[in-house]
Amino acid sequence: MRVLGIDPGLTRCGVGVVEGSVGRPLTMIDVGVIRTSAHLPIAERLVTIERGIDAWLDEHQPEAVAVERVFARSDSSTIMGTAQASGIALVAAARRGLPIAMHTPSEVKAAVTGSGRADKAQVGAMVTRILRLDAPPKPADAADALALAITHVWRGGAAARIEAARADAAVRSAGQRKVVRTR
Amino acid sequence: MRVLGIDPGLTRCGVGVVEGSVGRPLTMIDVGVIRTSAHLPIAERLVTIERGIDAWLDEHQPEAVAVERVFARSDSSTIMGTAQASGIALVAAARRGLPIAMHTPSEVKAAVTGSGRADKAQVGAMVTRILRLDAPPKPADAADALALAITHVWRGGAAARIEAARADAAVRSAGQRKVVRTR
Repeated sequence: MRVLGIDPGLTRCGVGVVEGSVGRPLTMIDVGVIRTSAHLPIAERLVTIERGIDAWLDEHQPEAVAVERVFARSDSSTIMGTAQASGIALVAAARRGLPIAMHTPSEVKAAVTGSGRADKAQVGAMVTRILRLDAPPKPADAADALALAITHVWRGGAAARIEAARADAAVRSAGQRKVVRTR
Repeated sequence: MRVLGIDPGLTRCGVGVVEGSVGRPLTMIDVGVIRTSAHLPIAERLVTIERGIDAWLDEHQPEAVAVERVFARSDSSTIMGTAQASGIALVAAARRGLPIAMHTPSEVKAAVTGSGRADKAQVGAMVTRILRLDAPPKPADAADALALAITHVWRGGAAARIEAARADAAVRSAGQRKVVRTR
């Protein structure tokens, strides 16, 4: 199973592709960061992120996408941009009909380190060990994207299938009610 | 000048098209709401919003798009979905190269009612009067989208030109630095 992990962000959006299956060694296919300049208007930055994610999807043809679930926290200066970037990531994957899973930061930390409260260094160290890399991927956003993909292979597969089945049932029951105009 | 106003939301995304210029009577071209079911996965809902906005852009060919600027507030249960929907709206407009302006709720209220703290009913009443409608557009999201478009015609044109000029300069100076991979 090949998974693209996306750690959404407006300034740095981490992307990492991992291949493998539960109980077998995982392989890193590629890792990187889509960067956008804070000098650009937000709409242009989001288009850059969309193009970047589309390029990663085109190049690596993942079977599933794992996106970090974003919460409204106290850190409100960056949270809106992060939420917008995550929306772009979700749409890019959903447009292609790819199964999408969202994992919280603590789920990802727990999956790769055993503790939901692990720090960045621990996550980086475990990603390095799990994927048999020479050094932790930099910046942390790149390591986090790989950790998301690892988490998805290990625990997300089942969750994504349940979500897809639920969505399929919901779409059938929703029928044509999705777009309504008031006049 | 024809403007599409978008009041982003995951459950109800208001859309309204207004035509006119400063100092002349404004005309409502169309108004509506893109709705998505809370039973669907968020990625599917965002795709529905994207398709809806694209359809409005195709049909009405606006010269500019005005999107409500979203802030992280206490109401965090819906704010993440609102932020994601606003990201989708911004990308849909930016992909077409349309000038985009973002106005805060208080800027919109001040523009149409004279008070930044006006309530929904006041905004609806003034939108009805300004556009010479028979009744306030329902739901409030539809009226808010029209208020955004009115605000844009009255005060957004200049702001959008400044933003576009700044973005153009920034893109030129940024050159090819926008997408970088770490390996």
